Amino acid sequence: MPRSKKDNVEDIAGLRERMRHSASHVMAEGVCALFPDAKLAIGPSTEEGFYYDFDLPRPLTPDDLAAIESKMKDTIAKNLPFVFEEINRETAKQMFSHQPYKLELIDDIQDEKLGTYRHGSFVDLCIGPHVSSTGEIKAFKLLSIAGAYWRGDEKRPMLQRIYGTAFETQEALDEHVRRMEEAARRDHRRLGRELDLFSVHEDAGAGLIYWHPKGGRIRTIVEDFWKKEHYNAGYELVYTPHLGKASLWETSGHLGFYRELMYSPMEVDEQSYYVKPMNCPFHIMIYKTDIRSYRELPLRLAELGTVYRYERAGVLHGLLRVRGFTQDDAHIFCRPDQVEDEIIRVLELTFLMLGAFGFKEYEIYLSTRPEKYVGETSEWDRATEALRKAIEKWHLEYNVDEGGGAFYGPKIDIKIRDALGRSWQCTTVQIDFNMPERFDLTFAGEDGREHRPYMIHRALLGSLERFLGVLIEHYGGAFPTWLAPVQAVVIPIADRHQEYAQRVQDELKKDGIRVEVDARSERMNLKIREAQLQKVPYMLVVGDKEVASSAVSVRKRNGENMGAVELQAFREMIKRAAQSRSLE
Amino acid sequence: MPRSKKDNVEDIAGLRERMRHSASHVMAEGVCALFPDAKLAIGPSTEEGFYYDFDLPRPLTPDDLAAIESKMKDTIAKNLPFVFEEINRETAKQMFSHQPYKLELIDDIQDEKLGTYRHGSFVDLCIGPHVSSTGEIKAFKLLSIAGAYWRGDEKRPMLQRIYGTAFETQEALDEHVRRMEEAARRDHRRLGRELDLFSVHEDAGAGLIYWHPKGGRIRTIVEDFWKKEHYNAGYELVYTPHLGKASLWETSGHLGFYRELMYSPMEVDEQSYYVKPMNCPFHIMIYKTDIRSYRELPLRLAELGTVYRYERAGVLHGLLRVRGFTQDDAHIFCRPDQVEDEIIRVLELTFLMLGAFGFKEYEIYLSTRPEKYVGETSEWDRATEALRKAIEKWHLEYNVDEGGGAFYGPKIDIKIRDALGRSWQCTTVQIDFNMPERFDLTFAGEDGREHRPYMIHRALLGSLERFLGVLIEHYGGAFPTWLAPVQAVVIPIADRHQEYAQRVQDELKKDGIRVEVDARSERMNLKIREAQLQKVPYMLVVGDKEVASSAVSVRKRNGENMGAVELQAFREMIKRAAQSRSLE
Repeated sequence: MPRSKKDNVEDIAGLRERMRHSASHVMAEGVCALFPDAKLAIGPSTEEGFYYDFDLPRPLTPDDLAAIESKMKDTIAKNLPFVFEEINRETAKQMFSHQPYKLELIDDIQDEKLGTYRHGSFVDLCIGPHVSSTGEIKAFKLLSIAGAYWRGDEKRPMLQRIYGTAFETQEALDEHVRRMEEAARRDHRRLGRELDLFSVHEDAGAGLIYWHPKGGRIRTIVEDFWKKEHYNAGYELVYTPHLGKASLWETSGHLGFYRELMYSPMEVDEQSYYVKPMNCPFHIMIYKTDIRSYRELPLRLAELGTVYRYERAGVLHGLLRVRGFTQDDAHIFCRPDQVEDEIIRVLELTFLMLGAFGFKEYEIYLSTRPEKYVGETSEWDRATEALRKAIEKWHLEYNVDEGGGAFYGPKIDIKIRDALGRSWQCTTVQIDFNMPERFDLTFAGEDGREHRPYMIHRALLGSLERFLGVLIEHYGGAFPTWLAPVQAVVIPIADRHQEYAQRVQDELKKDGIRVEVDARSERMNLKIREAQLQKVPYMLVVGDKEVASSAVSVRKRNGENMGAVELQAFREMIKRAAQSRSLE
Repeated sequence: MPRSKKDNVEDIAGLRERMRHSASHVMAEGVCALFPDAKLAIGPSTEEGFYYDFDLPRPLTPDDLAAIESKMKDTIAKNLPFVFEEINRETAKQMFSHQPYKLELIDDIQDEKLGTYRHGSFVDLCIGPHVSSTGEIKAFKLLSIAGAYWRGDEKRPMLQRIYGTAFETQEALDEHVRRMEEAARRDHRRLGRELDLFSVHEDAGAGLIYWHPKGGRIRTIVEDFWKKEHYNAGYELVYTPHLGKASLWETSGHLGFYRELMYSPMEVDEQSYYVKPMNCPFHIMIYKTDIRSYRELPLRLAELGTVYRYERAGVLHGLLRVRGFTQDDAHIFCRPDQVEDEIIRVLELTFLMLGAFGFKEYEIYLSTRPEKYVGETSEWDRATEALRKAIEKWHLEYNVDEGGGAFYGPKIDIKIRDALGRSWQCTTVQIDFNMPERFDLTFAGEDGREHRPYMIHRALLGSLERFLGVLIEHYGGAFPTWLAPVQAVVIPIADRHQEYAQRVQDELKKDGIRVEVDARSERMNLKIREAQLQKVPYMLVVGDKEVASSAVSVRKRNGENMGAVELQAFREMIKRAAQSRSLE
């Protein structure tokens, strides 16, 4: 069931956008009241709220936010109308003569007429839209202060940014703030530290992830599962280098259309080499090592391929935006008559994989031919139809992004919804008419002649780094048993129970259960609390009674006390949970 | 039981060396007889034989080798004595005035007196040693012709090199030639192509390996096994980036003492980054993310870490000498009192791993403190003793390479012996006094004070690329069932047996058995032959009889015919072979 992108825009979104933009003006007015010398930069609404950047005589404190909020409330109570006025460039320059950032903005505007919005005595350079009066800002809150370079340029002045948000009701605002607090608690960077999952070392290289033992364990489990399901689904696993000669990237075209996202070259034997930003040319090299027959197709080459892309330092963010990441990549080379079936299979594997990790809600986008494209329109139509039919075969709702495809082919993007209702771009299935042409890929058809194969790029999880970042936040670090780096901690009550605790560990380890003994001479309650903070699914307390009855007293991380469970029964229980990939 | 390196040198080796060196002179004489204008370069003995490099008026052919051999036989039959003479520089220059390469060599010699060896009328610039007369060259053979740059320098003239070998008996020579032929049949580059395991693409980057589906399958099996055994042995798996900032490599010291083996830098945000030639600094970064207590040690961080090192293009060789390779690396951080036990455990894991792949014969080397070293001699003594005791604990013979350790610590090297009796450097266990100092690694001791941990580098297989190269040659591509990329091929006799063949495949796949159906309309014998050439352990022929009795007719790749086996029985048999990692 296709939906166009327009249908999807709800009215509420437009209202919020105007309300938040208006709130940023009201906030700027408040800041100017407190700091008469404030220099104003820009103050847009955002998806989650609004902000405004200021050049101020001193750093802001949380107390300042309260004072600004108070000023804002006054303005809102007055219900001042927002009034639009068009002025010419000269008037504008006079009006903002003490505002150097505004003057710079004015210089950048091409039109002779410039827009302003006024409420009360406060005027800003702005083309709106706004709510009709300040009273329509129903519920707002200032949230935080951050540094931000003027125009995002590290060589320009550092300004102070105030973030806030506004909603149509106090309830909606409260709910939003509650979610933000919950999101902060689940922040994967914070949990990454607290659960000792990974680290980033600016001084050794920004945006590069170091997986610690516990994060590495989760990654290994995800990789093993991924490999197994890919073999089951008829993929072949390959391994390719992280470096390739410039000539390879010239043939692929990446040095032409992708260079700014590539790391700079290194010189080897007087030739330029690049670390790979993508795996595709390498899989193509494997395809080309042999003459391929129609009988061999589809050939599905999969790789957990680590790629490196240059992203500006300012946009890097924990695991979610990095410079080095491992794509769960595959390239499917198939005959034109196989493409629809292949896409259906890709989607089947996608839903199986995502579902196993607990993601069951998706937003699906189909992006079609843009104005500039390579390849035949008949091929585009055929490919786009194949994508569409594959989605419809799964009876899924989807959005059509007309003209939103890459120049080289149409695609399906899938976003997953996490426990907090946030959407994350995840899966991509992309048809490519460019690479097969550039590398002159062929197969010998049943007719004995050479044909061009279809090439499908696809990543289901996207990248391991990003996906694990989402996973950490989705579960707030309390991973299901099958993913938990430590599945159980044995807690002996006294020293005389150490030996039995060890025996419990040995017994469980035989089944590959990841179990530790907390042998420290600490109080039991402290050990339980620490294991809970580490989000270990099961705490197994052992004392005289448990030793006597070959049992363990089981506590779950949510506090639930299961009481004494016979060791063999617990062993079966946890084994079953892991094997069935239960989401508990 | 230590052996010094000297004890280990057998008399036979010295004899062979002299005999082969003498044979190279006799060969040069023969070449000069056929090509009076021949310019002579150098002609040493090697571990396997000898060679001589010539500048000749035309390319040599195999027929030339026969003619040269014939001349050599004449000279040997004459039993001419080898006579040493010392001459001064001027005489030497006159004597070799028509030999420009010899003149260049003379110019490079510092001494005033130069050595020559003469037999009959042939004189060469040489300090020996030689056998006493040509008749002592008992059995010889010229083997091949190859191009070789003068002094290995691509900018100097390309010469023609003739390889030969000589032995003390005809039997020993025949055995050697037989082994060489066998080695050629097992050459991993040839088998890599024939079995479609991997490829190297000079045009996309020399020395970089592309693992194809079948090679990738073997690699995955090896990696899975490696990970499992490392977890069992108390290691933690980590994942680290392939790039690091220059400052990291400065701290580690690699930019000082290792730079020529590193790839050239790339520039990111006006800073230099290097692809990693080693994983150690990254594991150290993980160690340093937290304050470590004596209770946490030993910390064993393991990684299948892909590193890149610059090797000259001329020395690259298939999988055995590459520019990008995946070390089965680990770094153990431990207290001084734990080091001996840790080395014992490393050796235990080493023998378990190597033994599982069928390598049961080892040569062990202990390398001790060199003249230039860092660290305290008392620490060196303690560490060296720990290495020695660990070896002796396993009751193994070993060689002591006095002073052969790296400047930063003593080490154990282990070579494995393959099916052809060749030795391959494989395992390294290396204590490092340098890195902990440079990175100021500490742990909080039981005494509450800061202490320096020991750091042990170790790779058991060495690198996956090299190890798989050795593995391919060891088994001649006929991998044991647990490693075989395809374990069984089902061969339906006629089209009407296709459905049953498919059922057999489905049934076996349920147990994770890697099985294919050869559904082509080809004759059964051709299918069997092709599966044998692909070294598939089991061929399962199915016809009317097998369909009727739910059986498969089993043929092994060695030609052995097991006759009809009930499908469930075969399923159990192959499952057992894989699980027990049988070497068949």
